[in-house]
Amino acid sequence: MNQFDNVSVIKQANVYFDGKCVSHTVVFPDGTRKSIGVILPSHLVFTTGAPEVMEISSGRCKVRLAGETDWTEYTAGQSFDVPGDSSFDIEALETLDYVCHFG
Amino acid sequence: MNQFDNVSVIKQANVYFDGKCVSHTVVFPDGTRKSIGVILPSHLVFTTGAPEVMEISSGRCKVRLAGETDWTEYTAGQSFDVPGDSSFDIEALETLDYVCHFG
Repeated sequence: MNQFDNVSVIKQANVYFDGKCVSHTVVFPDGTRKSIGVILPSHLVFTTGAPEVMEISSGRCKVRLAGETDWTEYTAGQSFDVPGDSSFDIEALETLDYVCHFG
Repeated sequence: MNQFDNVSVIKQANVYFDGKCVSHTVVFPDGTRKSIGVILPSHLVFTTGAPEVMEISSGRCKVRLAGETDWTEYTAGQSFDVPGDSSFDIEALETLDYVCHFG
């Protein structure tokens, strides 16, 4: 599924890390929010408030969750869970499209 | 209106100019497509296929259409028309959120 249907989308983008990460917020009929975004090739550290699931739509990255020593590679169709109040290192090896699911 | 309702949104972003411009495509129930995007502070030259209307949602820019010598400044709530098969120079003075209407 390469699109979300019957949703609302917020016009103003979320811009992080000087534009290395840009996302738009999508709101579902039940009020659930997800963000669809891009990470340009770079090494970034994200922090989480709520737990989230990062689903890779296209591209390739390496990820290391807080407290881990090993990096895991993810590519299109794969996803990883991030606990709340935590952080993760992500290295986008290619331009990355992702969907971030919260909660 | 800071959001579009009852739309579909394509997960994969459109990335232009090494990420200086990132947009997501929104599809309306009647099949109309618009893109919602961000332009980071920079000076870019866009070309058009179909005519388009660029509507500024937030931020501030200066624009010079092909064949014009003067720059015009636009800010949130304003828009400008671009003919088809043409081009325009845009200088984003701040991070710019826009909606691009086609046709």
